[in-house]
Amino acid sequence: MSKRTDIVIIGGGPAGMSAAVNAVARGKSVRLLSSEGNNLGRAELVDNYLGFYKLTGAELMQKFSEHTASLGIIHEKGRAANIMPLGDYFMINFAGEIIEAATVVLAIGVAKARAVPGEEQLLGRGISYCATCDGMLYRGKKAIVWGLAPDAAEETNFLGSIGVDVTMVAKGDRPAELNPSIPFISDTVRAVIGDDSVKAVDLGDNALETDGVFILRNAIAPTTLVPGLETENGFIKVNNRMETNIPGLYAAGDCTGSPLQISKAVGEGLIAAQKAAKYIDTTKS
Amino acid sequence: MSKRTDIVIIGGGPAGMSAAVNAVARGKSVRLLSSEGNNLGRAELVDNYLGFYKLTGAELMQKFSEHTASLGIIHEKGRAANIMPLGDYFMINFAGEIIEAATVVLAIGVAKARAVPGEEQLLGRGISYCATCDGMLYRGKKAIVWGLAPDAAEETNFLGSIGVDVTMVAKGDRPAELNPSIPFISDTVRAVIGDDSVKAVDLGDNALETDGVFILRNAIAPTTLVPGLETENGFIKVNNRMETNIPGLYAAGDCTGSPLQISKAVGEGLIAAQKAAKYIDTTKS
Repeated sequence: MSKRTDIVIIGGGPAGMSAAVNAVARGKSVRLLSSEGNNLGRAELVDNYLGFYKLTGAELMQKFSEHTASLGIIHEKGRAANIMPLGDYFMINFAGEIIEAATVVLAIGVAKARAVPGEEQLLGRGISYCATCDGMLYRGKKAIVWGLAPDAAEETNFLGSIGVDVTMVAKGDRPAELNPSIPFISDTVRAVIGDDSVKAVDLGDNALETDGVFILRNAIAPTTLVPGLETENGFIKVNNRMETNIPGLYAAGDCTGSPLQISKAVGEGLIAAQKAAKYIDTTKS
Repeated sequence: MSKRTDIVIIGGGPAGMSAAVNAVARGKSVRLLSSEGNNLGRAELVDNYLGFYKLTGAELMQKFSEHTASLGIIHEKGRAANIMPLGDYFMINFAGEIIEAATVVLAIGVAKARAVPGEEQLLGRGISYCATCDGMLYRGKKAIVWGLAPDAAEETNFLGSIGVDVTMVAKGDRPAELNPSIPFISDTVRAVIGDDSVKAVDLGDNALETDGVFILRNAIAPTTLVPGLETENGFIKVNNRMETNIPGLYAAGDCTGSPLQISKAVGEGLIAAQKAAKYIDTTKS
């Protein structure tokens, strides 16, 4: 069993990093969990975050990373999933590890992905976003991994290793790291087919029968990540203290809505961390 | 008559500077009006604004100023007063100049000053915060300037020059720049005395008769600055778009409430400028 962390931050972009910096400033223990890549890193030029100008997004991310590094904050790379609110603490599945957190700050950015036909209807009935969470359900059965994220091959290998009859579908070439015994189809999923549960995926020219589909995107819809989380137009609903509808759970940055800008994200990260720190101090005493 | 400016920003701290940077990014004309000094410049060490660490407040202000300078933004030093909402535009008295603005962003920080006894009751009945605004009312009469801001001597000289029988009261030595013909008392005002209107100021050991008192602080209460502005616990009331209760008037930074932190101020400055720019585009078309 892992030690309980004061503030677990999901997302390594500006909002998450600002939250981490401010959590440390408040003397709290922190883990900063981030999936691969974020929007800022891809920005061509950033000129409107006060104090920095004429920098690329990657250069600004480098400055931010130097700051977090100076405080001993580590960016832990991996996929966070299944954040369970358990009353006075949270359990988080992070790349297969179970993390206990007193509070959680969601700084997960915006999910640009649109659901494919059938995805929302069959969610939880054959569709999963997390191999390490739900893999065991498909032991001895057929499953397809639809790989839209850099770690998809690794997750597919995990399914293969626990005895799932898995096939990976993804655009482009077969990933070098994919276990040679696992079939690979270079294609994209147009729809998921099924009534009560998943029966097949539609690959355009043909359908592929399966018991389950793992859709592995970088971005996960917030409501998928945390059961019971309130959203509004796809964004996480927060008040001006960055509190969500779940006590101890905060959100910051693009995931709370427009403007999708660094300054706003950094400001909200600060507030979320301060309020989380205060929440811990209040509930402890 | 001056040309109308798109966005006039009152306050040269982080919120005002962030608003200015983002107003320019939106292609709007901007004037950045700031009184002397701000809280950040006095901070010993700032470690929680993402991207900068182990800097003093003054060093960070220097970085911010380099950014605004790179965009051609000028910090105009002086005292803004009497912001009048006139329906589709604003008039601002800035160090005696009348400025027309399509929109205004208040980034005035927090007023740390407490009112002295009698101040609130006699406001507008002999008490003023702006020599260039109300000076003419005291021509040929007695007035006292209570100097709590660096520009107080200059304002006192102005009153003397228009024929006010003015005396300056301030802590410490007589300011070198004070006109030699103007009496100076090294003291502090304990209370303002009067029923219907100002009669005298209480200097502790003695009272000094006067028709008017100019209280010149760096910080001005927001409601004094803008008639009809809604506040809450002394802070300017805004929604999450940084809109005040007056159309076209926005607020950002410490003046909107806690946390009184750079990241929050910078984030709010961004939002205020973006919404002001959008307001201009919408009302123009």
